[in-house]
Amino acid sequence: MDTVERIGISLEKDLLGLFDEMIKKQGYQNRSEAIRDLIRIRLSEETLKNPKAHAVAAVCLVYNHHSTSLMEKLTELQHSRLLQTVCSTHVHLDHHNCLEMIVLKGKIEDINKTAENLISIKGVKLGKINFVPAE
Amino acid sequence: MDTVERIGISLEKDLLGLFDEMIKKQGYQNRSEAIRDLIRIRLSEETLKNPKAHAVAAVCLVYNHHSTSLMEKLTELQHSRLLQTVCSTHVHLDHHNCLEMIVLKGKIEDINKTAENLISIKGVKLGKINFVPAE
Amino acid sequence: MDTVERIGISLEKDLLGLFDEMIKKQGYQNRSEAIRDLIRIRLSEETLKNPKAHAVAAVCLVYNHHSTSLMEKLTELQHSRLLQTVCSTHVHLDHHNCLEMIVLKGKIEDINKTAENLISIKGVKLGKINFVPAE
Amino acid sequence: MDTVERIGISLEKDLLGLFDEMIKKQGYQNRSEAIRDLIRIRLSEETLKNPKAHAVAAVCLVYNHHSTSLMEKLTELQHSRLLQTVCSTHVHLDHHNCLEMIVLKGKIEDINKTAENLISIKGVKLGKINFVPAE
Repeated sequence: MDTVERIGISLEKDLLGLFDEMIKKQGYQNRSEAIRDLIRIRLSEETLKNPKAHAVAAVCLVYNHHSTSLMEKLTELQHSRLLQTVCSTHVHLDHHNCLEMIVLKGKIEDINKTAENLISIKGVKLGKINFVPAE
Repeated sequence: MDTVERIGISLEKDLLGLFDEMIKKQGYQNRSEAIRDLIRIRLSEETLKNPKAHAVAAVCLVYNHHSTSLMEKLTELQHSRLLQTVCSTHVHLDHHNCLEMIVLKGKIEDINKTAENLISIKGVKLGKINFVPAE
Repeated sequence: MDTVERIGISLEKDLLGLFDEMIKKQGYQNRSEAIRDLIRIRLSEETLKNPKAHAVAAVCLVYNHHSTSLMEKLTELQHSRLLQTVCSTHVHLDHHNCLEMIVLKGKIEDINKTAENLISIKGVKLGKINFVPAE
Repeated sequence: MDTVERIGISLEKDLLGLFDEMIKKQGYQNRSEAIRDLIRIRLSEETLKNPKAHAVAAVCLVYNHHSTSLMEKLTELQHSRLLQTVCSTHVHLDHHNCLEMIVLKGKIEDINKTAENLISIKGVKLGKINFVPAE
């Protein structure tokens, strides 16, 4: 696995106190893990600023189950070869509404375009997207 | 189904032109659908400001598959009865990394606490969360 | 002034009811103004996705007033010609901390670079940035 | 001044390499300062989740300078005693548009309400808000 390095950092006692309190509440076992997470999320924000970067995205759509064209449109988009649809998961929210989570792989700008196309389908009520960088 | 009303709105010609151009690119068939989506996303933002509101959330976690404690911790959290785990979907990103999407139902503040607990587990590298209001 | 057009949109009675309730609370006098605001904010989000787009940004910095190098660095950055600093406003928060709001004009990517340079100065504790599109 | 403590943290060599590269580009002189900034921004996010927390906010408004009621409304809101307006800065963007930055102090929920009231004024085209915690 990866080689681990140990570095020293200095910070104000008050700041350290507040940090220790927060990460204890969040469930962290030690400071290193918490700081690694801060670094990773910051690095991923930087990567995701570039529309050409490759990413994996979870697109969440809430839609009325009468909106039968959603899956057809997704299938169609896949065949346009811009993106790879990894999988999708379907959850029944109530009598009328479903939650569909679709995992897409590709360039951020292509994923955004596909997400917009999905959200604009009649019957899709809400759409949200989370990106994760993929080297 | 829901009764549909028709209302009139006035807006500057230039603004309308830019709007029409954007929604055409996004794939909308007509202005009504695009404006309904803007209204729905704005209403959901308002609802989600309240930490006591009920929501459905998609928690996305990237983790090293050697982190075996993730699923145990999730099961444990379910038994604490604060939340209902609806389902989870697992995707292999590469040799080392997995993406786990977990759908949780409950109060926003409880979902946030659980998400923090999951993200703080050693081996979890990145965590992101998307909320959808649930009446 | 701009020519005003009137368009008709249709939406579910329930959705309209929730919308009317929200915008009344926010202080809107009529639906047209509220919908125009939704459209404008959505269009600006689209514009701001492009790192090459021109924008005006309000950079908010919280810093310890002993950090004397902040203003020197800003002056230095202005002379690098990437950006135009429009103005800055200084507020005393408490005995130790100041809030500096700096208005910058330029390409989004240049503004981001400058904001990062400012935030990384020793003594700057927090930095946040708001972009507004500038045609 | 604050007492400074020195702690050790361990992290993967690859992660450290990417972090060092990013913070060098951003202008940081050393890792400690960069990590302190990550901790401070994370702590402030936590504080700002609580609508009852005290904060300082920079509200940025773009508006048509014919909207004369903006400043009257702000004055009126101040007299309602919910908030303290610290200062405001005015910038001319072009022939039609102005940028007004208003610094408000108070509870987050009160600041949000005031910001909504300002944004809903006819003539205000865009509104954005940045919060900074105030103990």
